Amino acid sequence: MAYDKQLPKKSDDISGWYNALMLQAELAEYGPAKGTMILRPYGYAIWELVQQKLDAAFKANGVENAYFPIFIPESLLQKEASHLEGFSPELAIVTIGGGEVLQEKLIIRPTSETIMYASYSKWVKSWRDLPIMINQWNNAVRWEKRTYLFLRTTEFLWQEGHTAHATHDEAIVTQKWAMGAYAQLFRDQYALPGYIGTKSATETFAGASSTMTYETLMPGGKALQSATSHDLGQNFAHAFDIKFQDKNSKTEFVWQTSWGLSTRSLGGLFMVHGDDKGLRLPPELAPIQAIILPIRADDKFMSYADQVKSRLIDSKVRAKLDTRDGESLGFKINKWELKGVPLRIEIGAKEQADNKVKIVRRDNGKIAIVDVDKLSETVENLLKQIQDNLYKQAIDALESNTYSTADYADFKQQMSDSKGFIKANWCGNNACESMIKQETTATTRCKTDSTVEGNCIYCGKPHASEWYFAQSY
Amino acid sequence: MAYDKQLPKKSDDISGWYNALMLQAELAEYGPAKGTMILRPYGYAIWELVQQKLDAAFKANGVENAYFPIFIPESLLQKEASHLEGFSPELAIVTIGGGEVLQEKLIIRPTSETIMYASYSKWVKSWRDLPIMINQWNNAVRWEKRTYLFLRTTEFLWQEGHTAHATHDEAIVTQKWAMGAYAQLFRDQYALPGYIGTKSATETFAGASSTMTYETLMPGGKALQSATSHDLGQNFAHAFDIKFQDKNSKTEFVWQTSWGLSTRSLGGLFMVHGDDKGLRLPPELAPIQAIILPIRADDKFMSYADQVKSRLIDSKVRAKLDTRDGESLGFKINKWELKGVPLRIEIGAKEQADNKVKIVRRDNGKIAIVDVDKLSETVENLLKQIQDNLYKQAIDALESNTYSTADYADFKQQMSDSKGFIKANWCGNNACESMIKQETTATTRCKTDSTVEGNCIYCGKPHASEWYFAQSY
Repeated sequence: MAYDKQLPKKSDDISGWYNALMLQAELAEYGPAKGTMILRPYGYAIWELVQQKLDAAFKANGVENAYFPIFIPESLLQKEASHLEGFSPELAIVTIGGGEVLQEKLIIRPTSETIMYASYSKWVKSWRDLPIMINQWNNAVRWEKRTYLFLRTTEFLWQEGHTAHATHDEAIVTQKWAMGAYAQLFRDQYALPGYIGTKSATETFAGASSTMTYETLMPGGKALQSATSHDLGQNFAHAFDIKFQDKNSKTEFVWQTSWGLSTRSLGGLFMVHGDDKGLRLPPELAPIQAIILPIRADDKFMSYADQVKSRLIDSKVRAKLDTRDGESLGFKINKWELKGVPLRIEIGAKEQADNKVKIVRRDNGKIAIVDVDKLSETVENLLKQIQDNLYKQAIDALESNTYSTADYADFKQQMSDSKGFIKANWCGNNACESMIKQETTATTRCKTDSTVEGNCIYCGKPHASEWYFAQSY
Repeated sequence: MAYDKQLPKKSDDISGWYNALMLQAELAEYGPAKGTMILRPYGYAIWELVQQKLDAAFKANGVENAYFPIFIPESLLQKEASHLEGFSPELAIVTIGGGEVLQEKLIIRPTSETIMYASYSKWVKSWRDLPIMINQWNNAVRWEKRTYLFLRTTEFLWQEGHTAHATHDEAIVTQKWAMGAYAQLFRDQYALPGYIGTKSATETFAGASSTMTYETLMPGGKALQSATSHDLGQNFAHAFDIKFQDKNSKTEFVWQTSWGLSTRSLGGLFMVHGDDKGLRLPPELAPIQAIILPIRADDKFMSYADQVKSRLIDSKVRAKLDTRDGESLGFKINKWELKGVPLRIEIGAKEQADNKVKIVRRDNGKIAIVDVDKLSETVENLLKQIQDNLYKQAIDALESNTYSTADYADFKQQMSDSKGFIKANWCGNNACESMIKQETTATTRCKTDSTVEGNCIYCGKPHASEWYFAQSY
């Protein structure tokens, strides 16, 4: 039990703070194989809440879940050249099965385009078979040299959606719809604002025609790519021969999209909202929204505490009563603050005598003494306020760390002083992008909404679009 | 589209019937790597219904979900000797990661005892940390020589529950509780009766002290082990050093259980209830409970059909309207019969004029003409009747294929003629069990409830308990 240990201060040592927090809050720990992660029940419960929300949004749009094998024969992965090239350095490979050396190596899926589209090519014959809208919730493996709990792990959990359409327009609509679903999830559940836009050619998914991204700001000023949605064009359709007869009996290749969100996004959630006392979970993603702490464990208190819990459970609040033996009230307060539970409900002798409870907000420490008859209503309101407040704090941080400049010296200075996002014009040339990265450590994150053109901040060429730049997590 | 193809007759060629059915009903197909399975949306939706029910039952008993890595370092798997010996022949092994040969091989989990209990040993210090009740929904890999969709695949989906307790009694309660949860699921959702009991020593899970099993009868007379629950005793606790201080500050090893149910159980579901026309899904596990087929696709019909669908959806019936173009009504009827949808709702000109619908039961073909105002009520009743009828048919088959004998010649004859379950007494000696298997192909499935002892059917030794014998799937 580590709740009485001090966390490093977030502002002093973000990396030490983050690692200690993941362990002490019992969210996750490293597995025995390098770079793998054990998602403990408290961390996994947050992922389950994400799954519920996103799965419902997918199904409401006609997406069906399925499951494809984790093993991709090497020859299948080789079918789309740029896809193979992108993933080659990151592969985990099975060479032995059932005591024998395999004739063909099996790749542990880093992503499932190739294995899914081999099936799509068998399933699609006519325009009537389209669209295909399939999602998987599964595990995937990408070998990582430097790992970080949630943010960069060799094995991760995610969903990957894969669609096939009769027209490019329909594919684009789906690519944008998926990004819209992520944006809504990040805004309404994660309380995480971000910038949405298209990636540069060098940052586009291996095998895609275009990649849309949701970029969030981490404390310390780096950007985290939190979810992506790809227009795959007809690249995989050609490689896997996915063709259909259109309404005029003409044979055409399908147009495809893929889109994914992983446990990585939870790392961003913890990073952004946490403070020196530990996690601060947005109520929408808090497995426990209200923790009830009676100051003593005798029968009189416990029956009152039980009544408080029942009221909350009845109004669909995820409430828990901490009856653990052998921990002081102070210890328990620290523990649940560290675990980021949005509301703490304390019950002392006075509260009980007055038929009241004391409610303490995790986000700002504000205290309210509330009549038990008004408990559910008050708690629901407070949870909404906390959700809104966390979003407001995050958007303030994002906006106050987004700069705009047309001067390269200024850009360099800014990136070296305080990082964050910089809006600047770029001509789209790989060479400029690469030199900017080399000289400033900043990468292109995504194109902004702005239609105003300017001169490239590096080469000065006119008619350059505006991009977000930042260091990458 | 294969719905107009004839299935082999189930009674003539059960294996051909099963394979054709899996593909034509679009439940699953083989993946490109040998023995792997693609769970198509229709098959996966059934698994999702199983997950919902079982997950709720687990959580109601205090079980929490978590996720442990798929990679188990070889040295970890070697810690419990009998466990390693049991799984060694079935392992898939990663030897290359990130372009380099790994220093230590990584085993793809065949089951997660070893990797989970390495963590449990760090998490448990005091009696206050117990019990640990953790479940995982994940994929696992056991290399199989002969594979069969759902019933035996190299990679499968399952849940694996893993608990740790302060006392052996508490572990036994949990082992039985888990088997009880499976039994309820099989009875109430799968409509699959079965025999519950303890496995013989040779059939006990590798590393366990005892294994409880749910044994169902497949058409053709073989038994399918459909779910298991293990008392692990202190075997893994010793191997992984999982100790705690009890209330008297004495250091003790924990007592453990593990229990699992996989996609294999769905193979049993399809086998048992299917008929010559295709699947017959029990309503509880049918992704579509009622399929609505208007005889024409014009606007007048469609608005009535939409109204019928809305009524059903409003009463929580999983209803779907088939508006697919280019298929005749007869083709659609065959298609949905093949896919095992419990109720077919046909809407013709007469039905619409009279404000009625025609309802056809998939289980017995019975037809009812029903007033649209009574639709929801009627459908709910019919779904219950179908669920009950499928269970009744399955229990009749189980009972009429369960024999009892005290004579070995009779036993042999029975097993060679018609298979099924045979109740017979056995002394518990490995040699007798092994000779019976060699001479009759029958294996011990589980001990019966009977406390009456008799002479061993093989060696004649007295005081032998009663066991179920059957061929194994």
